[in-house]
Amino acid sequence: MPKPNVREQLLEAGLRTLHTQGFNGCAVQDITQAAGVPKGSFYNHFESKEALAMAALEMFWVNGTARRALLADDSIDPVERLRQHFQKLSKALAKIKYERGCMIGNFSSEMSGNPEFRERLAKIYADWSLALERCIEDAKSAGKLKAQIPPKALAAFLVNAWEGAVLRSKVELNGSAMEDFEQVVFAGFFA
Amino acid sequence: MPKPNVREQLLEAGLRTLHTQGFNGCAVQDITQAAGVPKGSFYNHFESKEALAMAALEMFWVNGTARRALLADDSIDPVERLRQHFQKLSKALAKIKYERGCMIGNFSSEMSGNPEFRERLAKIYADWSLALERCIEDAKSAGKLKAQIPPKALAAFLVNAWEGAVLRSKVELNGSAMEDFEQVVFAGFFA
Repeated sequence: MPKPNVREQLLEAGLRTLHTQGFNGCAVQDITQAAGVPKGSFYNHFESKEALAMAALEMFWVNGTARRALLADDSIDPVERLRQHFQKLSKALAKIKYERGCMIGNFSSEMSGNPEFRERLAKIYADWSLALERCIEDAKSAGKLKAQIPPKALAAFLVNAWEGAVLRSKVELNGSAMEDFEQVVFAGFFA
Repeated sequence: MPKPNVREQLLEAGLRTLHTQGFNGCAVQDITQAAGVPKGSFYNHFESKEALAMAALEMFWVNGTARRALLADDSIDPVERLRQHFQKLSKALAKIKYERGCMIGNFSSEMSGNPEFRERLAKIYADWSLALERCIEDAKSAGKLKAQIPPKALAAFLVNAWEGAVLRSKVELNGSAMEDFEQVVFAGFFA
């Protein structure tokens, strides 16, 4: 029986390594090295590098659960919820010095030729968009949505615009793109 | 002396292969095979895969010159210029069935650990943003910019939002993200 802590070590090291170097930019050996476990142990825990990458993507997504739950917290003004949601994402990026980007965006670029990843990523985008859409609906009900834009389209647009801002921050290695995002989105769409 | 047409073949095949598979997702041999030239000829023309990738990125960027020149065409209404600029980009993506994404975005995700690429990509983003900014300035002068948003921030935001939409279209393999972009941007920011 594989020891559960080796699996966890591999998963955590895999998330970090794949997030930093991309799927094709690292080998299984880089991950076992980062985890400090023998290379041979990898396949006792994961069927393939793809299987680890999928588990790492799940972990990355689950790590953001509280940020998404915030969007549904109706004790907070809906526009303020949106603002806090993106500010928390900004802080997480600043913490890693903008060097890694977002694993969702990175894998969208690199792994969308793989149907299993494409399907999972599409579901992630859809779920994230839906969480934003409900919050935008609340903002609309509160009379705080300025333009005549369907909340569904705006929600999808914001997810995509955010991912694009993260891409740019990875190139510029600073938070300018996040500042532009916040300035434009909150002055442009919300009262 | 290397024959110029082999270099061109390598460059065209390299652009196609790198755009589709990413930098780490293909080997020099995939490019020479796609070009139909002997593997050994590669290094007569390019110092490294990085050198070819940089030349391919330049070619990709230069291929968009007319689309960017359109932004400065003051015989056309500035909002209409913006709309046409993004519609032309949409059409180019539809033509390749949304499968490849944008090389600028792909390399932002994959190559930003390399200072030479990071620097070139930052300049590309800055130049593209500047072309949009001037057009947005024209829209503002014409009284067609709705919100009180600095054209510089909006221009950078639009470039990033576009790149994010392209990422998502690569996952969804359809033009929904482009439709959301057009609907939200033109209803939200411009009169």
